[in-house]
Amino acid sequence: MKSLLLAELGIPIEFANVEGPKSQKNHSIIDLHASALNHRDVWITKGMYPGIVTPIILGSDGVGKVDGKNVIINPGINWGANESVQSNDFEVLGLPRNGTFAEKICIENKYIYSKPEHLSILEAAALPLAGVTAYRVLFSRCQLKSTDKVLVTGAGGGVALMAIQFALANGCEVHVTCGSDEKLGRAIELGVSGGYNYKKEDWYKDVKVHFDIIIDSAGGDSFQHLVKLCAPGARIGFYGATLGKYNNLNPQLLFWRQVSILGSTMGSDADFKSMLDFVSKNKIHPIIDEVFDLKDGAKAFDKMAAGKQFGKIVLQH
Amino acid sequence: MKSLLLAELGIPIEFANVEGPKSQKNHSIIDLHASALNHRDVWITKGMYPGIVTPIILGSDGVGKVDGKNVIINPGINWGANESVQSNDFEVLGLPRNGTFAEKICIENKYIYSKPEHLSILEAAALPLAGVTAYRVLFSRCQLKSTDKVLVTGAGGGVALMAIQFALANGCEVHVTCGSDEKLGRAIELGVSGGYNYKKEDWYKDVKVHFDIIIDSAGGDSFQHLVKLCAPGARIGFYGATLGKYNNLNPQLLFWRQVSILGSTMGSDADFKSMLDFVSKNKIHPIIDEVFDLKDGAKAFDKMAAGKQFGKIVLQH
Repeated sequence: MKSLLLAELGIPIEFANVEGPKSQKNHSIIDLHASALNHRDVWITKGMYPGIVTPIILGSDGVGKVDGKNVIINPGINWGANESVQSNDFEVLGLPRNGTFAEKICIENKYIYSKPEHLSILEAAALPLAGVTAYRVLFSRCQLKSTDKVLVTGAGGGVALMAIQFALANGCEVHVTCGSDEKLGRAIELGVSGGYNYKKEDWYKDVKVHFDIIIDSAGGDSFQHLVKLCAPGARIGFYGATLGKYNNLNPQLLFWRQVSILGSTMGSDADFKSMLDFVSKNKIHPIIDEVFDLKDGAKAFDKMAAGKQFGKIVLQH
Repeated sequence: MKSLLLAELGIPIEFANVEGPKSQKNHSIIDLHASALNHRDVWITKGMYPGIVTPIILGSDGVGKVDGKNVIINPGINWGANESVQSNDFEVLGLPRNGTFAEKICIENKYIYSKPEHLSILEAAALPLAGVTAYRVLFSRCQLKSTDKVLVTGAGGGVALMAIQFALANGCEVHVTCGSDEKLGRAIELGVSGGYNYKKEDWYKDVKVHFDIIIDSAGGDSFQHLVKLCAPGARIGFYGATLGKYNNLNPQLLFWRQVSILGSTMGSDADFKSMLDFVSKNKIHPIIDEVFDLKDGAKAFDKMAAGKQFGKIVLQH
């Protein structure tokens, strides 16, 4: 079958013929019609991820057909029984096991769900990993309420945009930070109430709101300023930290305001199911930046690496 | 009446005659028999607290008699209706309103509770502020379970010792850090399973356990090492940060293990009542370091400032 293969570290991803998956008990072989990229895929090709094995077919998000029915895959494998944290056996589809950038995949049946009816195949492909990550950090970890004022940093990324859409659908007042005025304009079209360009020096001094919920994946030295923007009882949820370590955090602000800083990773099976239900009930359409053919996967990886996208980069198989 | 008065900033606390409190509607005048010091009292005398007014009678912890009945005071005034965070009107007894280092105090009836029967007057005086702070951070914020492995830093301080006693009474395996081997010995007598002297370089490398709950009030540069000692799903609760800002925190560890860092301050009325119930049910006796006469209050303040105590410093009126 055709696939996007990372043959070994240090060379670009390639469109290659590989052997198709074999059937297994309690599994189904899905004819994949679309998939989507995540930062994780790019980081793996650059060797910036633990436990990399090659050759490997990358890809966590996949939508396709089984027995004539459109299905979507939960990419969180072996979460385990504890809702509060994944088990030691947890893995994300696409490393170490082969992922969705291929014509077919063999997946255990419990990870296969009906595609939300209101979504196109391409939209549905944009949903799984970003959707479940955004859902867990917002709802399961930060306990989002409709009266909460929400700040999402780095609008443009897949999870951040999904968090913005989920919070808006939940009735919240949402503000964002972006790295460009163009992205700010796009976010405002979505319905956010305030936007701040984090490339402007001391951007946080322009923020006149204190937030109940802040969703971040940047971390680094700017995280200290998020602490200053917390309302009493605020929750800061984070699912990544591309800028690295936290420094210069003021604990007095945090304990006096009884702030919670909540680390979050992906989501449980229950989170995935709740996310699908929420997206269906609220008729949320994931934002697609661009669609590439599977054979042009290398170009899709280049665009993801450049970080200029607003929404998900989708592959059509 | 006799009192310990801070007449103005910059001079020591003095044993002085002041006018007694006037009666008010829905309030009672308590004949105070004992009180206890908290770090807060010392910091106020040093000007290290917001909103200091003088002259003032300090003191948050008080036990005494009303109508022949032994009573204990909840020092958290005007918490408000939100369990997750105190209101803007919240204050701790003893600043800005006059506190318990005096022969009498006038207190709104809703802050007056029966003294736990198993406690002496002096033991009960050691309980309120440290007890409610420890109870909230452990139970309301960190959701302590009997199966949790717990690390409490800075054993010796009033809240830390109370947290150790509460976690032990809850059936938990408890470990501690201390600044002296003598305090470590005292903690082991209490029943802790492991102790580490934080003055030893790289002390955290000797710790072979990962903790579900870590209770801290030191903060500063050593906080980064606590992050490394977290089990998956761990909660770090903190109610102070005597060593200041957090630096060099590794967010990857935090989000992958889905750690929660939970700021906590004092406790609500519900926390105070639950704490009294827990202490009574488990027959917990607060640890008293030394008892001073009210007239020797200045000596008690000096001992607290030196930080050599193991347990609460109590005043007998």
